[in-house]
Amino acid sequence: MPASDFTQQEYAARLEKNRAAMARQGIETLLVADPSNMAWLTGYDGWSFYVPQMVILPSKGSPLWWGRTQDKAGAAQTTWLDPADLFDWPEEHVQHPEHHPVESLVALLRERGWTDALGVEMDNYYYSAASHRILEQAFGPEALHDATGLVNWQRAVKSDTELEMMRKAGKLTAHMHATLRENYREGVPKNELVAQVQAAGIAGLPGLAGDYPAIAPIAPSGREASASHITWNDRPLVRGEATYFEISGCFRRYHCPASRTLFLGEPPADIRRAEAAVLTAIDDALAIARPGVTCEEVAACVYDSFARAGYVKGNRTGYPIGLSYPPDWGERTMSLRPGDTTPLQENMSFHLMPGLWTPDWGLAITESFVVTPSGGQPLAEIPREMVVRAG
Amino acid sequence: MPASDFTQQEYAARLEKNRAAMARQGIETLLVADPSNMAWLTGYDGWSFYVPQMVILPSKGSPLWWGRTQDKAGAAQTTWLDPADLFDWPEEHVQHPEHHPVESLVALLRERGWTDALGVEMDNYYYSAASHRILEQAFGPEALHDATGLVNWQRAVKSDTELEMMRKAGKLTAHMHATLRENYREGVPKNELVAQVQAAGIAGLPGLAGDYPAIAPIAPSGREASASHITWNDRPLVRGEATYFEISGCFRRYHCPASRTLFLGEPPADIRRAEAAVLTAIDDALAIARPGVTCEEVAACVYDSFARAGYVKGNRTGYPIGLSYPPDWGERTMSLRPGDTTPLQENMSFHLMPGLWTPDWGLAITESFVVTPSGGQPLAEIPREMVVRAG
Repeated sequence: MPASDFTQQEYAARLEKNRAAMARQGIETLLVADPSNMAWLTGYDGWSFYVPQMVILPSKGSPLWWGRTQDKAGAAQTTWLDPADLFDWPEEHVQHPEHHPVESLVALLRERGWTDALGVEMDNYYYSAASHRILEQAFGPEALHDATGLVNWQRAVKSDTELEMMRKAGKLTAHMHATLRENYREGVPKNELVAQVQAAGIAGLPGLAGDYPAIAPIAPSGREASASHITWNDRPLVRGEATYFEISGCFRRYHCPASRTLFLGEPPADIRRAEAAVLTAIDDALAIARPGVTCEEVAACVYDSFARAGYVKGNRTGYPIGLSYPPDWGERTMSLRPGDTTPLQENMSFHLMPGLWTPDWGLAITESFVVTPSGGQPLAEIPREMVVRAG
Repeated sequence: MPASDFTQQEYAARLEKNRAAMARQGIETLLVADPSNMAWLTGYDGWSFYVPQMVILPSKGSPLWWGRTQDKAGAAQTTWLDPADLFDWPEEHVQHPEHHPVESLVALLRERGWTDALGVEMDNYYYSAASHRILEQAFGPEALHDATGLVNWQRAVKSDTELEMMRKAGKLTAHMHATLRENYREGVPKNELVAQVQAAGIAGLPGLAGDYPAIAPIAPSGREASASHITWNDRPLVRGEATYFEISGCFRRYHCPASRTLFLGEPPADIRRAEAAVLTAIDDALAIARPGVTCEEVAACVYDSFARAGYVKGNRTGYPIGLSYPPDWGERTMSLRPGDTTPLQENMSFHLMPGLWTPDWGLAITESFVVTPSGGQPLAEIPREMVVRAG
């Protein structure tokens, strides 16, 4: 996702939105460690997030990129930043028992005079407790403000260009599911099916190359599927079992996840009943997902449909999606669940996830959609019904 | 990697090693958030590490698994733990603005009386600054000890079963590189090649199914390769460019990474010179990688070979490998670099990484090896020379 995917006007608008949010929260300088947020602000792309790196966004002037020496060339290649705004920490400090890269961040912040009203993403994978301690010791705890989700919230409403990329990701997702339907047969080892599906997502379609999704395929069968985050194994597909695939195409870091459930043989009545409840839930939720409707109102469509079918759904039923890096393709802001009264806005995008897990099986049929004045519009076209094969 | 891959004796030995290390560091209860460490101690497997989860290892008695309600079934399926030792936090608290799952961990620790001498992995992706703050507020800062890497260090010397799994991963890596050599041709879009290579790694070989590697393929070409963590794009392969692929097969979460460099056309003299230096570096390093030799002595073989060829290598040249989850397949303990005087032990395993990045190209030919009394033994058999195609 090099910066060139978007206009400089779009990046300027992103900075402006963030600075307004920073001002509201009393933050003068924002330290952005979430790679999705880094990419959204500057275009930075690379599998380098396993070492400390940040985008530093001051209230005025250009953001800075700060990372490992070895990755500076990648920052020059992928971001729109001026080379003079790329800063690196010493290569010798990578995973070193006695040095920590954040010591060099402290020096950079001091040099700039940015030592107070610093926003940090306290609850992010890529901002460790150790990094926080070093900043606390340098600037005092009162200089640091929790800015978890600050940038993520600014990402919620997508631009037209972003939606175009998500629809392209949706075409990849549809291609992956088509590959799955074609190759789903009794006796096929699960890993072979996963290999075909992943290859389809990355080889892509003419003019549509796939990127790596932020989550590996979740593809449990039968009782395995009573657990919700089992990936795959080499067991051949057998009759009488439901398998669900939770997968996403990825186009230049943008995602469009969708799950479908497949069954070999004749699905039992309870699975069919659950399927009907899920399909109704999706129809109902998409019908009302207009601007001004709240997250919990959308969620209620799912809970109500499940309740009418005699099922209790105990977890949230969706979350916002867009640009992402591992380990999560969700944006971690709103949730489609009771108690979340955030009103939807036009061009917000969600993964509606009406999955159902019982002790004996799991069923997931899900849909990614964008909020429009006429309701939720799916971002991918994939037949929703359970895929049933005689064998 | 269900627990059944290893004997109960092996798990008992792992716990014992960890408890000895805990005792040396004055830790009574270890809170393990690193998914690789969680899996190594209990067998737990699932793509659930994007929410807080831990293995709690007290100085006596069984470890506990603690995680999201939705993932408890996965813990029951994959770990060797007694179902009574699986604890969950309320599903409603997932990514919630007003609740944090670690509040339920605090309650569990209080209930058990484990409120002091707690070890926490301060510098891990999956232990956030927010989680740490909640534990600090509950138990006081003095109750928490930094245990970053404690479990990782116990993983350094591999068991015979682990080495067998790494050699299987190595067979997958070799299969991926063979697929790459076969399909590497002028005009092939990079993403199509990546799709084929990934599919080969997951479809695997008879009796050898592949798992998802902890790092996506790194596969830059030409000037892109001057940056070290660029993944891929859709640009067709062109004559006159070097491309390197840093990839790994993964067998039940065990890795065996290996990079190879490919060239279309006639490689220029400077790349050939670098190749020769890298090949010599690998031969020299493997020859001396015996028990008792230090990490920096192995690294010196690489720096010396590069210096003789007129290159300066400014970064570390290897790290330990084994069981891993995203975003890193390294163990983050030792490094093959100057200043690391850790002596090698028999059955330690490393990824020797003599890569070279210039402003115009990058070259990486790397080897994963196990330490034996007669030197480093490669864990995969893959021709090392640069792959050169006329077009």
